[in-house]
Amino acid sequence: MKLSMYFIPTLREDPAEAQIISHRLMLRSGMINQTCNGIYSWLPLGFRVLSKIERIIAEEQDTIGAHRILMPTVQPAKLWQESGRYDDYGKEMLRIKDRHDREMLYGPTHEEVVTDLARQFIKSYKQLPVMFYQIHWKFRDEIRPRFGVMRGREFLMKDGYSFDVTREAAVETYKNVMSSYLRTFARIGLRAIPVRADAGAIGGDLSHEFHVIAQTGESEIFYDSDYDKILLNGEITFADINELYTAADEKHDTETCPVPKERLRSARGIEVGHVFYFGKKYSASMGLFVIGKDGNAFYPEMGSYGIGVSRLVAATIEANHDENGIIWPDAIAPFHVGLITIKRQNTSIQNVVESLYGTLLNMGLEVLYDDRDESAGIKFADMDLIGVPYQVICGLKSIDGIFEWKERKTGKRLYFSQDELLNKLADVFPVVKIDSLRGNLYK
Amino acid sequence: MKLSMYFIPTLREDPAEAQIISHRLMLRSGMINQTCNGIYSWLPLGFRVLSKIERIIAEEQDTIGAHRILMPTVQPAKLWQESGRYDDYGKEMLRIKDRHDREMLYGPTHEEVVTDLARQFIKSYKQLPVMFYQIHWKFRDEIRPRFGVMRGREFLMKDGYSFDVTREAAVETYKNVMSSYLRTFARIGLRAIPVRADAGAIGGDLSHEFHVIAQTGESEIFYDSDYDKILLNGEITFADINELYTAADEKHDTETCPVPKERLRSARGIEVGHVFYFGKKYSASMGLFVIGKDGNAFYPEMGSYGIGVSRLVAATIEANHDENGIIWPDAIAPFHVGLITIKRQNTSIQNVVESLYGTLLNMGLEVLYDDRDESAGIKFADMDLIGVPYQVICGLKSIDGIFEWKERKTGKRLYFSQDELLNKLADVFPVVKIDSLRGNLYK
Repeated sequence: MKLSMYFIPTLREDPAEAQIISHRLMLRSGMINQTCNGIYSWLPLGFRVLSKIERIIAEEQDTIGAHRILMPTVQPAKLWQESGRYDDYGKEMLRIKDRHDREMLYGPTHEEVVTDLARQFIKSYKQLPVMFYQIHWKFRDEIRPRFGVMRGREFLMKDGYSFDVTREAAVETYKNVMSSYLRTFARIGLRAIPVRADAGAIGGDLSHEFHVIAQTGESEIFYDSDYDKILLNGEITFADINELYTAADEKHDTETCPVPKERLRSARGIEVGHVFYFGKKYSASMGLFVIGKDGNAFYPEMGSYGIGVSRLVAATIEANHDENGIIWPDAIAPFHVGLITIKRQNTSIQNVVESLYGTLLNMGLEVLYDDRDESAGIKFADMDLIGVPYQVICGLKSIDGIFEWKERKTGKRLYFSQDELLNKLADVFPVVKIDSLRGNLYK
Repeated sequence: MKLSMYFIPTLREDPAEAQIISHRLMLRSGMINQTCNGIYSWLPLGFRVLSKIERIIAEEQDTIGAHRILMPTVQPAKLWQESGRYDDYGKEMLRIKDRHDREMLYGPTHEEVVTDLARQFIKSYKQLPVMFYQIHWKFRDEIRPRFGVMRGREFLMKDGYSFDVTREAAVETYKNVMSSYLRTFARIGLRAIPVRADAGAIGGDLSHEFHVIAQTGESEIFYDSDYDKILLNGEITFADINELYTAADEKHDTETCPVPKERLRSARGIEVGHVFYFGKKYSASMGLFVIGKDGNAFYPEMGSYGIGVSRLVAATIEANHDENGIIWPDAIAPFHVGLITIKRQNTSIQNVVESLYGTLLNMGLEVLYDDRDESAGIKFADMDLIGVPYQVICGLKSIDGIFEWKERKTGKRLYFSQDELLNKLADVFPVVKIDSLRGNLYK
């Protein structure tokens, strides 16, 4: 993409309304724009990052056999009256009356809709286990929306719902989802720790919150240092996780903590996911019954599993930035590599860069080529602000085939020949295993 | 995908509530489920088709340099009061009050939001022309929603908005979008004809509706038979289109029609797109002004361009079905090829099919493998109902390497060796030009 043809409305100054780093950087790098309080438009750069996160989440959900669907954003109140949550939910629910004065709402979550769906189609234990998910927009009418998309009113969420025959099977499903969440966050490039959350009103419920570690995190969490080893090694097994101590601030007690001091770690976290096992709560209240092997009807065991997709964009920035701007993890960077020309008036340099640009695109790389007539200083600053992880700077030496390579994260600078440059990029962004591609990408 | 692991809740009987073919077939093939009047969930099969259409539309929009963004579904009434449309819009607009009693609405369209966005960022003629698009959910509170997703209340739309310096430039943009729409529909596998629509209140406006040709179409359109040649040859140029006569029923007059009788064609059409050039209507009313080359401020010329994405799914079915079910065009079929085993108890057949299934997946094909313990009759009926365009039937002969090949559209049946089968499929679904694939697919 040539920057002169693109739309990245960067700001030089910190916007006054933004109190936290991610909000500031998302506005400054032209990722989002506020339409009204707590409601945002996603501009091209923001949309790219959001889509990449969405894709990773979807692939990991598909891998565990969850079925992707889309439920409506506007739901009938009737379903929530059945489950008993309509009156309880309070003012965070955006209530709507349609032209016929029927009570509707903008879904803050979808347990009721998915249970209604299941009771129409799932009649036999043979159809279980089954899990559905969607990646879709939700609305929670926060009394005081703030921090940009970190606590907005309209937000993108992945929500999944599972149905099992027995409690044991449901807990297995719950563990599978937890493992897949850890893989998801690891693929995005984040360290995330599941923290046991409050048990619900019904005994025997299970619930974990997933926190992304970031110095600017909203809450303090405690965990066994062995956790870091598991995350670093990428060896994520639920058995290990479950054995390791994690606790939120309000649950942690130094006296009773089973972890020896030298292994106890604390960190700030940002909640980006939440998983629940809640048994028959919705299946029983909404009359979702299924015929069992013995011919008797039973209510399936359910769980629900959420990831805040738009929130993850902000959380990633909180965990990955410096004084110059965003530092995107490779997997979700809006562009893989940035091309910056200095002395753009020089035709020989221009030709070299245009040719390199073509070569990189042909390699399947996503390239942001800053071809604007701006000073080198502005170009460097914008590329760092936007957070492109690898940058190639082309100047007089490039006419002789020498390119400056800069890594956004470390600030490391090297000089490469074109071959070295291409090999380096092929190394950083390996071709994924699908090497043939049909009319489209669904399998 | 193995059907035993998938979720396609097909119905044997025609649902009583469905009056038109697409609605009936979408319910029967388990693509959608009604949550309440005019509001649907998209089940896995429906979601796949919807996503494929979305992808084709996005690719064609990217090709003409439109910037993909996402604007919020919930909008402040304030913006519509500025444009003057808030009171005019009537009861189709879903009006909402938030917890602070502020007037909001669920966007039926986004001219106001995009103009608000533009006035914040577009200050100079140098930033023009620019075009934005999104593919997002909208709501129109139809008084009598009907015909499934053909006339639902919550629906998926591609909406685009252009900003130009002069009327001439805006008309050029308008033509570019029209050409790209024709390419879009052609890629999906549909014949679509642009019909000149009513000029708006302001003189000099331009507007065309795009109609998909289908016997069951809601309205009659008239057109020059040369149109068919252009569409068939895939040679779509705006110049040709613009010279050819098209008219909706209410505009067509046999007396004054400039096309000789022998070249005049009539057909039933379903409206799936609408494009408008409306000049300074929103830029002037909402104060979007830009500094021109001469240093004077001016209001940009705008257009807006819509495709009904969820409606297209239904329109495609209206145009492509028979008494057995849906006949998906190759480009948006939920699966490329179906695998049906007869005599599944036979271990040798099972082994052959499992191996073929793996081979097809490795080719990058999307395969629906019916591995259920159902009769051959049920399997044939379901595969036809779902509309998988190519089907491979494996029976006793397959142990000796002979496979039956069936084309859904023509009903043609052939016997192939495995090599012939693979060559045929590689021919029908050629590998697209991207032959290497990095961490993801955005470029």
